[in-house]
Amino acid sequence: MNLRAGRLNSGMEDEAAEFTSSLTFDHHIFEADIECNMAHTRMLAHEGIIPEEVAAKIIDALESLREEGIEALDMDPSVEDIHMAVENYVTARIGEEAGFMHTGKSRNDQVATDLRLALRERIRTISRELLDFIDSISDLALDHTETVMVGYTHLQHAQPTTLGHHLMAYASSLRRDYERLQDTLKRVDQNPLGSAAMTTTSFPINRELTTRLLGFSDYMKNSMDAVSARDFIAETVFDLSMLAVNLSRISEEMILWSTHEFGIVEIPDEFSSTSSIMPQKKNPDVAEIARAKTSTVQGELVTILGIMKALPYTYNRDLQEVTPHLWRAVDTVLSMIRVVRGMLLGIRVNRDRALELAGANFATATDLADIIVRERGIPFRVAHRIVGRLVTRAIEDGLAPGDVDSVYLDEVSLEVTGRKLELDPELVEKALDPLENVRMRRIPGGPAPEMVRVAVEEMKSFIESERK
Amino acid sequence: MNLRAGRLNSGMEDEAAEFTSSLTFDHHIFEADIECNMAHTRMLAHEGIIPEEVAAKIIDALESLREEGIEALDMDPSVEDIHMAVENYVTARIGEEAGFMHTGKSRNDQVATDLRLALRERIRTISRELLDFIDSISDLALDHTETVMVGYTHLQHAQPTTLGHHLMAYASSLRRDYERLQDTLKRVDQNPLGSAAMTTTSFPINRELTTRLLGFSDYMKNSMDAVSARDFIAETVFDLSMLAVNLSRISEEMILWSTHEFGIVEIPDEFSSTSSIMPQKKNPDVAEIARAKTSTVQGELVTILGIMKALPYTYNRDLQEVTPHLWRAVDTVLSMIRVVRGMLLGIRVNRDRALELAGANFATATDLADIIVRERGIPFRVAHRIVGRLVTRAIEDGLAPGDVDSVYLDEVSLEVTGRKLELDPELVEKALDPLENVRMRRIPGGPAPEMVRVAVEEMKSFIESERK
Amino acid sequence: MNLRAGRLNSGMEDEAAEFTSSLTFDHHIFEADIECNMAHTRMLAHEGIIPEEVAAKIIDALESLREEGIEALDMDPSVEDIHMAVENYVTARIGEEAGFMHTGKSRNDQVATDLRLALRERIRTISRELLDFIDSISDLALDHTETVMVGYTHLQHAQPTTLGHHLMAYASSLRRDYERLQDTLKRVDQNPLGSAAMTTTSFPINRELTTRLLGFSDYMKNSMDAVSARDFIAETVFDLSMLAVNLSRISEEMILWSTHEFGIVEIPDEFSSTSSIMPQKKNPDVAEIARAKTSTVQGELVTILGIMKALPYTYNRDLQEVTPHLWRAVDTVLSMIRVVRGMLLGIRVNRDRALELAGANFATATDLADIIVRERGIPFRVAHRIVGRLVTRAIEDGLAPGDVDSVYLDEVSLEVTGRKLELDPELVEKALDPLENVRMRRIPGGPAPEMVRVAVEEMKSFIESERK
Amino acid sequence: MNLRAGRLNSGMEDEAAEFTSSLTFDHHIFEADIECNMAHTRMLAHEGIIPEEVAAKIIDALESLREEGIEALDMDPSVEDIHMAVENYVTARIGEEAGFMHTGKSRNDQVATDLRLALRERIRTISRELLDFIDSISDLALDHTETVMVGYTHLQHAQPTTLGHHLMAYASSLRRDYERLQDTLKRVDQNPLGSAAMTTTSFPINRELTTRLLGFSDYMKNSMDAVSARDFIAETVFDLSMLAVNLSRISEEMILWSTHEFGIVEIPDEFSSTSSIMPQKKNPDVAEIARAKTSTVQGELVTILGIMKALPYTYNRDLQEVTPHLWRAVDTVLSMIRVVRGMLLGIRVNRDRALELAGANFATATDLADIIVRERGIPFRVAHRIVGRLVTRAIEDGLAPGDVDSVYLDEVSLEVTGRKLELDPELVEKALDPLENVRMRRIPGGPAPEMVRVAVEEMKSFIESERK
Repeated sequence: MNLRAGRLNSGMEDEAAEFTSSLTFDHHIFEADIECNMAHTRMLAHEGIIPEEVAAKIIDALESLREEGIEALDMDPSVEDIHMAVENYVTARIGEEAGFMHTGKSRNDQVATDLRLALRERIRTISRELLDFIDSISDLALDHTETVMVGYTHLQHAQPTTLGHHLMAYASSLRRDYERLQDTLKRVDQNPLGSAAMTTTSFPINRELTTRLLGFSDYMKNSMDAVSARDFIAETVFDLSMLAVNLSRISEEMILWSTHEFGIVEIPDEFSSTSSIMPQKKNPDVAEIARAKTSTVQGELVTILGIMKALPYTYNRDLQEVTPHLWRAVDTVLSMIRVVRGMLLGIRVNRDRALELAGANFATATDLADIIVRERGIPFRVAHRIVGRLVTRAIEDGLAPGDVDSVYLDEVSLEVTGRKLELDPELVEKALDPLENVRMRRIPGGPAPEMVRVAVEEMKSFIESERK
Repeated sequence: MNLRAGRLNSGMEDEAAEFTSSLTFDHHIFEADIECNMAHTRMLAHEGIIPEEVAAKIIDALESLREEGIEALDMDPSVEDIHMAVENYVTARIGEEAGFMHTGKSRNDQVATDLRLALRERIRTISRELLDFIDSISDLALDHTETVMVGYTHLQHAQPTTLGHHLMAYASSLRRDYERLQDTLKRVDQNPLGSAAMTTTSFPINRELTTRLLGFSDYMKNSMDAVSARDFIAETVFDLSMLAVNLSRISEEMILWSTHEFGIVEIPDEFSSTSSIMPQKKNPDVAEIARAKTSTVQGELVTILGIMKALPYTYNRDLQEVTPHLWRAVDTVLSMIRVVRGMLLGIRVNRDRALELAGANFATATDLADIIVRERGIPFRVAHRIVGRLVTRAIEDGLAPGDVDSVYLDEVSLEVTGRKLELDPELVEKALDPLENVRMRRIPGGPAPEMVRVAVEEMKSFIESERK
Repeated sequence: MNLRAGRLNSGMEDEAAEFTSSLTFDHHIFEADIECNMAHTRMLAHEGIIPEEVAAKIIDALESLREEGIEALDMDPSVEDIHMAVENYVTARIGEEAGFMHTGKSRNDQVATDLRLALRERIRTISRELLDFIDSISDLALDHTETVMVGYTHLQHAQPTTLGHHLMAYASSLRRDYERLQDTLKRVDQNPLGSAAMTTTSFPINRELTTRLLGFSDYMKNSMDAVSARDFIAETVFDLSMLAVNLSRISEEMILWSTHEFGIVEIPDEFSSTSSIMPQKKNPDVAEIARAKTSTVQGELVTILGIMKALPYTYNRDLQEVTPHLWRAVDTVLSMIRVVRGMLLGIRVNRDRALELAGANFATATDLADIIVRERGIPFRVAHRIVGRLVTRAIEDGLAPGDVDSVYLDEVSLEVTGRKLELDPELVEKALDPLENVRMRRIPGGPAPEMVRVAVEEMKSFIESERK
Repeated sequence: MNLRAGRLNSGMEDEAAEFTSSLTFDHHIFEADIECNMAHTRMLAHEGIIPEEVAAKIIDALESLREEGIEALDMDPSVEDIHMAVENYVTARIGEEAGFMHTGKSRNDQVATDLRLALRERIRTISRELLDFIDSISDLALDHTETVMVGYTHLQHAQPTTLGHHLMAYASSLRRDYERLQDTLKRVDQNPLGSAAMTTTSFPINRELTTRLLGFSDYMKNSMDAVSARDFIAETVFDLSMLAVNLSRISEEMILWSTHEFGIVEIPDEFSSTSSIMPQKKNPDVAEIARAKTSTVQGELVTILGIMKALPYTYNRDLQEVTPHLWRAVDTVLSMIRVVRGMLLGIRVNRDRALELAGANFATATDLADIIVRERGIPFRVAHRIVGRLVTRAIEDGLAPGDVDSVYLDEVSLEVTGRKLELDPELVEKALDPLENVRMRRIPGGPAPEMVRVAVEEMKSFIESERK
């Protein structure tokens, strides 16, 4: 079946045919296309628009195709796209009556429907995997509620925290990525079928019926919008970009933490590689590629938004070029989730090194300032100045945090404010101890072990409710 | 008050100070910063962490600042940011006790809170303006339910439609943009305050109270996530990018339709310009700039996602650079909505030209094919081939659609299928008449006047429920 | 040969192996990799670093591989990349001595060298095709030095021009794209080989020799830079993005000009398609896809720049993810050049319609203003005001440009300035005639037929000198 | 002077006027606009197109304006742009004769000329600053030809190098950025003046004269191309993006190296900040902001390419929106160069720590493998396997590189190959010593001190020749 026969005097030039063909990516919508044709055909028969027996033949043919799989189709570039390939298949089986399948339907509404059906499935898969990942992170966090480590701002030591607390930061950000996808799903799950080329049809089709048959939550309320809207794709790819960013932050930390210098974790061998010339190397390749692929997904988003900009209504062939970028983003992010999960869950944590770093560089200083405020009623900014000076002087004097005591503190206080503080020496010692420090931060959302356990519990109950 | 005094031996180099200062953009969060400081101070006093009378003085000072406005602040680059400027102001008024305001609070949680408060307001404003725009489009659509025009695919004549139907496609896409923003709002409306630098604090602060005082729907459940998450910004800017794309599509159509060649609309003078050398010109500048600014917003999104990629936890100064792009995107899109609305609502429609084009180029041919299917039970693809041949031949013969009749159709049918169709001549005539053609498409979402009226009604009731 | 054997205790997890493998894209550097191995091996033997007879065996094996082609390689994901696959092949043929091939060489310098060799070839191919395209455009321009059409600014009629002049604007922009690629080539054509992993080697290798053997213009002067620089890729992809933009502008004009409304050109059937439901359609699909793919190439650029941002020295696995985007951009743009060329060179021009539009809408008004300045010594801005008013009034009066004469002009002049102009009626008539108008613009770079011929000649001589 | 008077019946709506005004950014071309007007006016007089005395008055007025500065202009949004503001100024001074200044000139060619003039200056400034930076890096490298440090791949220890060698990698990449800008300059330095609105003019203007007066290297050869080409902007912004990427890589390393964990450098206080709550912090803010602004510049590039895509010829108002992104990119990168330079040149290097790391983690292992190859004629891959196993075992045995000797090596060799190696113990020791290791790499482009000195010399002579 060659659509061109009617209107054009010659076939498409070969390179042009390949250039404009969507077949390379159409396997993503193969099953959705069958499903869509079936629902439409059933509806046409139900409404008496085409004969029942013709509908039955068409559906039979489509079912055979589903069983045989996409290999049964002739996918030569000259065929243009999968819709024509499917039609050709049905025609080959049942003859010209196959043509009834397209009554009151166009490739414009069909491809939009196919894309939405196929994407709905992919989003559900990603959501499931994401939920599993969050679940596993929460489990891991429970193992590490007392694994003290230093928290960073500006990649400088800031305050002591625990690995459990840190892991729950990952979980919290990924949860928002999950929720965003669920919101997007509402806009994906809309039925464009029945819009035909752009203005519906004069056949008395039943859009509610196809909506029900295809499991959509509603049909789209303007047919011109329905065939030309691809915002559901851009939105999905944004969600994936954002998710990729969050995965890249985890990856970056694995890269940093597994350096010789940080030495906090070791990445599992199954997610590392070595060097062809430097045999001592153990490289965090999975993390690096995940980091790089974050930019890949962002590039897909840029492309999609760039294509859609300023397109006049309704369908333009440009829209076809949107789709490969969607599938690439989906595939990329799905594999990112899997490998980052495998890598993260397999890390070996060096607790001693983590604790050592937490105590190495005055990360507890803030709390010393807090204690001064509490015990002596001094405004925070003044306490801040005292402790700032103490740190500078200690570094100059070559003292570690453990070497600082209340006497040393008083010397500095005298210098800065003209007064001694005379704090309880034990209090000073406790403030400067990383583990004690973490235990004192019993605020909701904070690092104290019981608070992290509360956060895990909340997360677990969210996951459970979503899985239902 | 100079934070550096404690730790660093010298001031920041001038160009570096300007390079790293956020002051140029901090006016966007001036009021939010006051609000945030007030809520925090009230909470501190309520929990007995700082003395009531000190709290009262601080709040008094903050209230004066709110009245005096941002001009009251010293915004020299060496001040670093608005948080320091506000603190300096309060200190100048009440002395060192101002320092109590920062007990258990850091610039890290404060700036995150400020941004969310300020952005919440801006999203609400944009949402309102958007709703008004959709409302006006719907009104305009009602005026044009019988204004026949041709619908385009590939910018080629496709099928007749009405301007009313076309306008409702605009409204439908903008509605999704609106809904997307409401979903995003859920994630903006989360309170990070109390996270302090990254691990909360050892002061017994009350996060629920500040959440209530600031009108947030909940507080964030992990303090490390809370200070380093900017996905709420990326998501907002994506929403705005998408909205801009939809506005650019409207703009593109105004540019096209107001060309001499299309001649369907005239853009109001208030939204046009002329040329310095070609006095006859009337240029659609607003539409062009709106089209261009769509890329601007996309650029902001790229920047934001690029900055966030692979940032280790928690706060990094990079995050500061995210903010100007947010505000630029917000300002740009808000003005885009306003000017595109002004332009669109003011167009003068040339109904004669619109109708002329609808009948000029066989845009009704699909329906002729449909009628052949319905009347003669021929598969759609065969009918498609007959009509395709008819169009090619009519063009070769120099015939307009109005010149084609059932006799001519039979000649073509004989050539293509070997049989005549012998359709009722009146039926053929009706199928080829654009207005009749539109009236026949009474499918939900379709262009028939009653269907467009239904769509407007649904839209109006949606708007009403949202405005409540 | 498994590199991992030495250092890692387990193989890579399957999904991770696939995730990090570059094999899918490595066919682009298959030949370059052989060439690089050969040159390096020859140099090693020449410098006495490895035995001559071993080198001969290695080169023999590499030559067989070149003949057998890439299919001879085992490309299982666990093999990691093509360098290992090639080494495995050579090892299978000649045994462990294959290992000598990697003396003083690492995958880090090898892949950089391969990429540069392969890209150099691709840039030369693109350059040739581009030059051919410019050449053909120039020929076409010669055919149309007197094909009058209207020139547009803001898509509004501005001034008369010719299709020949317009086509030479295409040629001029593409020439810059060509020149840009030649400048980039200088930076691609630099030899990183010999840098080894990052710090060269303690073997006394000869970098000048491999540079000569591989035909590079120089070797890179810092080994750490050499293995981690990918700016040559980003620059190439920028050049391609810019070229794509210029092709998209041509495509956009073909889309516009082939609309029913403009009707200036007809796109050849071989580069068009029709509709599955609207048989009268002839769609400019090639132009639309070319327009869309412009965004695709831009997306690749964004990805590449995003990956490279803030990467610490030297090699990081992220760099591997840069490459597929390069090849995709190269392939995309190469096919864009070909199909846009085919489309453009095949257009059928509707000269009557082009001329009709040139005279339809006061596009000659600027010249009327110029004549007033010249003949009456009035400042241009005053003349501009008179003609502006004349156009507005003529439109109100329903007059076409052909209906305007010197009497009408005087009425307007009287109204605007209080004085008549009393110009020679013939002069007014001539100024308003599009063809005369074009002929008067005999400035270098202008539309007068002889000026376009000069431009074509210059372009032709440029092309000839480049082809040598 | 209001251009609209002639053609439009009403002024532009206020928000639309602001939306479409370019005045906010026009100060960048203030001086160029004067220069351009002067050259054009001089040419007009020289060719006898306008009276000498009028030209003299105009030039006088323009000179006063240059002296008074941009503050002398009325920049109300209703004025549209700086060209009109300048014209208004001249008109206010000399009356209607000011209008002669625009004979045969349009805002379309004028703005293109202004942009090129102004950008030419900015590129020259950036180039100068860049050259100075490269010069200073080279000086710094000379100080550190023997400062041994570890080189990284995948952020894992790879091989010993020196800081001098590493710094010259920075210099080498920046040199390409410099060269790229010089290539771009060729395409910026082209004169569009005389193209008028798009088709030149019927006045006998002299384009060669204005080209000479404005110091352009040539005039543009097609007037339609000349007014609508903005590729020179996109190309410049790409160059700046690439340069920013290279600066971001330096910044990233400063961030990493100044962490507590790496501890290799200390960033000067003038380029650091501290924390409002954590007084011990010293944050690399300048480096972080520079890293973030890299994405900002990339965003500008995306915007520019996005705007230009698929724009029909010739001028469209969209082009105006390109300009602010250019200036933002230029300003951003110029300040990036300055602050990154200040930061880098001021670092305090911790040589002991650098050396310690170089010897800590078997970074010299590659050379041990090389020695095995050289001394025992074993293929590299076998040697690689032996050393890989040695490293794994040493780590398991808790041995540092310094603890490994020829006996230990033989044990491993026996296990892997069944044979001992029996290397000279001194040779093994030397291979494992970082400084010796570096000294052995005397290949051009390598880290041996004399090679780095050669590289510095070459760079210096390049800089000198460019400065001439």
